Amino acid sequence: MSEQASFPAPGAANDLEEGLALTPKFDDGGLVICVATDAANGDLLMVAHMNAQALAKTIATGEAWYYSRSRRALWRKGETSGHTQRVVEMRVDCDQDAVWIKVEQVAGACHTGRRSCFYRAVPLGQQGRTIKLEFSEDRVFDPKAVYGK
Amino acid sequence: MSEQASFPAPGAANDLEEGLALTPKFDDGGLVICVATDAANGDLLMVAHMNAQALAKTIATGEAWYYSRSRRALWRKGETSGHTQRVVEMRVDCDQDAVWIKVEQVAGACHTGRRSCFYRAVPLGQQGRTIKLEFSEDRVFDPKAVYGK
Repeated sequence: MSEQASFPAPGAANDLEEGLALTPKFDDGGLVICVATDAANGDLLMVAHMNAQALAKTIATGEAWYYSRSRRALWRKGETSGHTQRVVEMRVDCDQDAVWIKVEQVAGACHTGRRSCFYRAVPLGQQGRTIKLEFSEDRVFDPKAVYGK
Repeated sequence: MSEQASFPAPGAANDLEEGLALTPKFDDGGLVICVATDAANGDLLMVAHMNAQALAKTIATGEAWYYSRSRRALWRKGETSGHTQRVVEMRVDCDQDAVWIKVEQVAGACHTGRRSCFYRAVPLGQQGRTIKLEFSEDRVFDPKAVYGK
């Protein structure tokens, strides 16, 4: 696959919403949102971004590729940690600015060592500036052992 | 609740990731990503954005509020359609720039009439500029009847 990837430009709303062509609506930074859920139980694992190249590679290979905004680099999920994501199913949303992948996650998705990045609950009914969180998930791996200090 | 809402500023990575205070990391537009899944079966319903006010209202009331980037307005989900979302559980991710809500969705989440905005599959293994989609979900309501023409 070429290192460059491109898709047809998005059309009008009806084409975006009811069409049979993938015409991603990339934001000003050239990205779409990607939501990864656990194919085993439906839990949300992580939210990240894909540029055209990451999206094309994910579709072509069935392995999850992302674009890291902080590192400004294409990123194969698990390339450092080994905690890869095999894509079981991919979907695109109505206006084609977000994709959903159901994945088989090795070990954990989160760099902090948890299975999911969403390991803290926000109890409802709280008001005001100070909102307390509750931990709801334990680590499944030791991040220092995987990523180093 | 005041029409203004604010949260403490995000701290260093360790506070963001391991702390017990909600300190959302809003983007340059003052928004965090919100992922809504179906509390009944784990399906992804929609991806949208919340500003500080939408986030505060959602936490306080247990009903989903969003911020519409296109309309530049706070938006209570279902205020036009009646297709509200009662929040069963809320979580925040490691770097606090995304929240996950599990919701009880009335009728459908998508303005096109589907239960989920992710009603088209992207079959894997495709390469090149032209990627074909497949419809994977039928309408659960008639958008013209709900929203008008």
